[in-house]
Amino acid sequence: MIDLRSDTVTRPTAEMRRAMADAVVGDDVIDIDPTVAALQSETASLLGKEAALFMPSGSMANQIAVRVHCTRGSEFLCEADCHIYQYEQAAFAQLSGLVAKTIQGDSGILLPSQLSDQIRPHNDHMVRTEMITLENTHNRGGGTIQPLQTVIEICEWAEKNGLRRHLDGARLWNAIEATGVDAKQWADPFDSVSVCFSKGLGAPVGSVLAGSKPFIAEARRTRKLFGGGMRQAGIIAAGALHALRHHRPRLAVDHQHAQRLAAAVEECPGLSLGAAGVQTNIIFAFIDPAWGTAKQLVDLLREEQVACMAMLPQAIRLVTHMDVDSDQIDRAAEALRKIMASGPGSDASGCK
Amino acid sequence: MIDLRSDTVTRPTAEMRRAMADAVVGDDVIDIDPTVAALQSETASLLGKEAALFMPSGSMANQIAVRVHCTRGSEFLCEADCHIYQYEQAAFAQLSGLVAKTIQGDSGILLPSQLSDQIRPHNDHMVRTEMITLENTHNRGGGTIQPLQTVIEICEWAEKNGLRRHLDGARLWNAIEATGVDAKQWADPFDSVSVCFSKGLGAPVGSVLAGSKPFIAEARRTRKLFGGGMRQAGIIAAGALHALRHHRPRLAVDHQHAQRLAAAVEECPGLSLGAAGVQTNIIFAFIDPAWGTAKQLVDLLREEQVACMAMLPQAIRLVTHMDVDSDQIDRAAEALRKIMASGPGSDASGCK
Amino acid sequence: MIDLRSDTVTRPTAEMRRAMADAVVGDDVIDIDPTVAALQSETASLLGKEAALFMPSGSMANQIAVRVHCTRGSEFLCEADCHIYQYEQAAFAQLSGLVAKTIQGDSGILLPSQLSDQIRPHNDHMVRTEMITLENTHNRGGGTIQPLQTVIEICEWAEKNGLRRHLDGARLWNAIEATGVDAKQWADPFDSVSVCFSKGLGAPVGSVLAGSKPFIAEARRTRKLFGGGMRQAGIIAAGALHALRHHRPRLAVDHQHAQRLAAAVEECPGLSLGAAGVQTNIIFAFIDPAWGTAKQLVDLLREEQVACMAMLPQAIRLVTHMDVDSDQIDRAAEALRKIMASGPGSDASGCK
Amino acid sequence: MIDLRSDTVTRPTAEMRRAMADAVVGDDVIDIDPTVAALQSETASLLGKEAALFMPSGSMANQIAVRVHCTRGSEFLCEADCHIYQYEQAAFAQLSGLVAKTIQGDSGILLPSQLSDQIRPHNDHMVRTEMITLENTHNRGGGTIQPLQTVIEICEWAEKNGLRRHLDGARLWNAIEATGVDAKQWADPFDSVSVCFSKGLGAPVGSVLAGSKPFIAEARRTRKLFGGGMRQAGIIAAGALHALRHHRPRLAVDHQHAQRLAAAVEECPGLSLGAAGVQTNIIFAFIDPAWGTAKQLVDLLREEQVACMAMLPQAIRLVTHMDVDSDQIDRAAEALRKIMASGPGSDASGCK
Repeated sequence: MIDLRSDTVTRPTAEMRRAMADAVVGDDVIDIDPTVAALQSETASLLGKEAALFMPSGSMANQIAVRVHCTRGSEFLCEADCHIYQYEQAAFAQLSGLVAKTIQGDSGILLPSQLSDQIRPHNDHMVRTEMITLENTHNRGGGTIQPLQTVIEICEWAEKNGLRRHLDGARLWNAIEATGVDAKQWADPFDSVSVCFSKGLGAPVGSVLAGSKPFIAEARRTRKLFGGGMRQAGIIAAGALHALRHHRPRLAVDHQHAQRLAAAVEECPGLSLGAAGVQTNIIFAFIDPAWGTAKQLVDLLREEQVACMAMLPQAIRLVTHMDVDSDQIDRAAEALRKIMASGPGSDASGCK
Repeated sequence: MIDLRSDTVTRPTAEMRRAMADAVVGDDVIDIDPTVAALQSETASLLGKEAALFMPSGSMANQIAVRVHCTRGSEFLCEADCHIYQYEQAAFAQLSGLVAKTIQGDSGILLPSQLSDQIRPHNDHMVRTEMITLENTHNRGGGTIQPLQTVIEICEWAEKNGLRRHLDGARLWNAIEATGVDAKQWADPFDSVSVCFSKGLGAPVGSVLAGSKPFIAEARRTRKLFGGGMRQAGIIAAGALHALRHHRPRLAVDHQHAQRLAAAVEECPGLSLGAAGVQTNIIFAFIDPAWGTAKQLVDLLREEQVACMAMLPQAIRLVTHMDVDSDQIDRAAEALRKIMASGPGSDASGCK
Repeated sequence: MIDLRSDTVTRPTAEMRRAMADAVVGDDVIDIDPTVAALQSETASLLGKEAALFMPSGSMANQIAVRVHCTRGSEFLCEADCHIYQYEQAAFAQLSGLVAKTIQGDSGILLPSQLSDQIRPHNDHMVRTEMITLENTHNRGGGTIQPLQTVIEICEWAEKNGLRRHLDGARLWNAIEATGVDAKQWADPFDSVSVCFSKGLGAPVGSVLAGSKPFIAEARRTRKLFGGGMRQAGIIAAGALHALRHHRPRLAVDHQHAQRLAAAVEECPGLSLGAAGVQTNIIFAFIDPAWGTAKQLVDLLREEQVACMAMLPQAIRLVTHMDVDSDQIDRAAEALRKIMASGPGSDASGCK
Repeated sequence: MIDLRSDTVTRPTAEMRRAMADAVVGDDVIDIDPTVAALQSETASLLGKEAALFMPSGSMANQIAVRVHCTRGSEFLCEADCHIYQYEQAAFAQLSGLVAKTIQGDSGILLPSQLSDQIRPHNDHMVRTEMITLENTHNRGGGTIQPLQTVIEICEWAEKNGLRRHLDGARLWNAIEATGVDAKQWADPFDSVSVCFSKGLGAPVGSVLAGSKPFIAEARRTRKLFGGGMRQAGIIAAGALHALRHHRPRLAVDHQHAQRLAAAVEECPGLSLGAAGVQTNIIFAFIDPAWGTAKQLVDLLREEQVACMAMLPQAIRLVTHMDVDSDQIDRAAEALRKIMASGPGSDASGCK
């Protein structure tokens, strides 16, 4: 099976497994685990932040950031398709009693002009607007990159209006690789940044949340509250640290692979890319309803040993990553061409 | 340093590291990681439950159990010094809006007779009583064992009154070893049980929550909400699985070590054991105020290379575990004798 | 001052005051207050529901409905400008941990076609979609009426998909008067309906929530939780009951007054009505930015003894009600004409 | 029926009804209702606080105080039988995510010495202790008075330790009348005080919360959140204001009546007062189990036209108030004597 469902499916390399097996560890709840500490310190430094904290998941990192930044009775602004709002079971509301005010972006990308009238006046009928989050690259937007200039403008506007700023940088590594803009520049406009090691970088488990020292102290306390305090977490932190040190450059390969798949999508009758094209390692292929549905295409691809996800009723998502090599990309492209060439109608509707 | 602060400080053995390095893994969020699955299945089977779920921490396992068992607007009964109420930052209230109704036990042990009038009548002024939790062995009670017969009576009463029953079995392995009563018998009276692998069993990270299939399905959903969904978690689950398979018998050694330390405490002027004595791997040594305080004793022990915790103003906690060997136990006992022999008063008050 | 800020500003009439002074009352927390009971019963009957409950405010009625209908971990669909989402401090999130998924209507009116893809698939990443709310008439939409046929279609779709349905009918009385469709028909497609007595009907305090008996029993329990249980509430319920019995027909006068003001707005250069026109007792007058802002117009009107609200940066809201008579409407219209005739530019920008 | 169930059952007097009928009112949500303003101002002044806020219930006043005083992730100390913990459906947890740490008093009365070790150390395992509440007089304690000197000592200790202090003074008027200590003295040690007008003072609806200006501003915002914002609330505030101005002195009569009932209880075989005796207008009569249960006694008294409540399995509560006159007190005493004289056993067990 060529697994293009997500870049989260990668398995650790032999070197990474060795690093984990050899990790120096300690009790990270009552002390600090030295490998966790190294990962936190290197990530904070890379992002230009004072401090950082290891987390069992990116969802926890994001939801803790939202909770720590937003006081009781407030809301945050976010793009309508972002991960924090769509895919984290609304922990911000369920666990923290907060509201997300969503603004519809274009393939996940917000324009500064869309935000100008989004801050609520102060009165007793309304929650207080206290924060804004961006996601870069944007998953449901199709791996799109929120351009640096718009990030800067949005964050300047936010700061001027007293809003805290959080970046969901689960795939920030891809934005860095694709643009050549370094981590510090991307992170600088934000109060906090989450980055993930178990997506394109290929580590088994873990994200890091970075920010100021007081912010991270409160995030650490909140991590305990959420049940994310782990003992000898250095074992998995070692995998993340290995990924951080060795796997960033190879994201370029994933991006080239994505372009090859994108070309195949464009060639196929009945398939098209979104307006934003393919910018990193995620391909959204939109399906002509005359042909059939995303679910049908997913099922047919699976018969050809290609796994992917139906993200929308009429769109599949293909994600390239380190466990898919060049040959497999070609075979996946070929499978797409074959299926789409055989035409829509009775055949397609015949599959379940 | 002889680290008797907690049995959570243990580091993985070489064999355990090898098991983790060699683990077969998969994406446990979108599929099931096979090693995680094996751990869940073996633990469920051992506890006689239908299903089980891996968690990054025991606190998450407990707090998810409480959340899933208790509907909105309800409370649960628990012993006043239990971990769920005292040491998990009251996530039941902060995250789930629930109330803990505490009942003071004797060294953490509840009598069935203490519970008979604890269920609230149904009226609009009051929350509904929906659950009871027990902790076995009981940490703050001094590693005490809630006797099986009382467990059965309490749970029968609870079931008759429509209460769900959860066991915080973070150190259930110690109760099993100390009593010879097996896991199934301890778990049987409960709807759900949490057990921990990173305490006496020596794994780096992880707990498991076990219960019925529908309960675990909802717990899995809640784990995602709490940010506890991890990708290739098989790496750490492999450590827990190794511990489960190989480290349970050796708890007997920890218990023998605890008895040696207990004997030393009893010999020391100015120190005494609680009424419950030492039943497993935890020793509470109560300090005569005429001698000084727990904080003073902790500091003096540290100068002798023995680390422990001041759990109460007048009591220290010593915990035996697999990273403390027989020699170190003797040296710790010797340190205690030396310090307490030197007498209270000016010396003691001289330390900071 | 001609107070057109809201229909909530009305003061009780002499007859209403007499009804309140003479009300037979009892302790509505431990028993049932007879006047409260009469109001509840008459309102339930009028709306064709089994039971009803008196509330100190419409916000409490709505937020209790949302809480009772939605289980933990769910969301409800609502129009983006509705009162429940915009003006009730997001109690659904702050107090109940729920999410509002907003859909932008046209002047507050939703089309059935906008809803078809709004129900989330069942997976652990997402909250569950459990409810839909409509608001009729729609305050921020400009007193617009959601047409009965669309209400029926939306609620049929919702029911088919397992969603509960709540109507925020704070100004349902206006929709009834304007359309001739009776209360039962408006309420029938919904599981619950809230109606308000302190807006157009002129009572000093109070709303009622109606629904099935089990729903109202749980709402009563929740009202206690929110602090809305009141003792001899019959005093204010008597005002609401008087309003219910005597003040509904006179809403026609408010609607005629609103048409007079609407005509004035249409005549004024620099002012215009929204696309939906004026359907009940609320007039939104949109201001040409070349003239100035809503805040400027509010200030100038105040100098002419006319009070109204700036609801949007470029729109004021005028609301007719029983404490504004025909003469005052003419004077308000005259004030509008005078101010707008004097032209924009330096004059307008000179006011603060 | 002689209704001794609660002092909340009183009905407004003719004068009070007149005051309500004549009240000058306004929209208290968008402006300030002048009668509400007068009540708030007079109550604040009487309690020596900067500001005050009218509430539809004492539960709302208390729960808003707790929410405003306690930040996310904290707990408050309170007596184990207090109203805030027992009878307000734990809104502090359900709505605000807070924890109550209960301390068992003696007939509701706390000693300063019981509090000294109740503040949690600062660490990530624990909530933060931020507040203490007292209840005076104490309802479930039997109308007992927390002595002024202990109030002062407890609040001094609390202030020194950084805890906010709230007084649930629902029946503070009774403590004032019984001791001669004035409202200011009772209120002075606290940051906030709630008082109720619909208990001994006889108004139909309403409580007031008093405190500093910033505290009350945030409480007002929170009242909107809870759905407690009412429009022309001056109608009911007028009743409360009348009660405040005219009904306080007559509490002395209720206290005399309570003494008469207490004497009857003491005379009855099988009944006894609690150790604290009867201090204000509440009588707890404890029933010898050999005689029967509280429920049995309540039923038998009801046959004699005396209504009261079974507050504990073996105790009934009798409450004197302005709608029970001297004759009725005598008849209630007589009923008690008659029932208890007829002896326990088969007779008692025959009633349902």
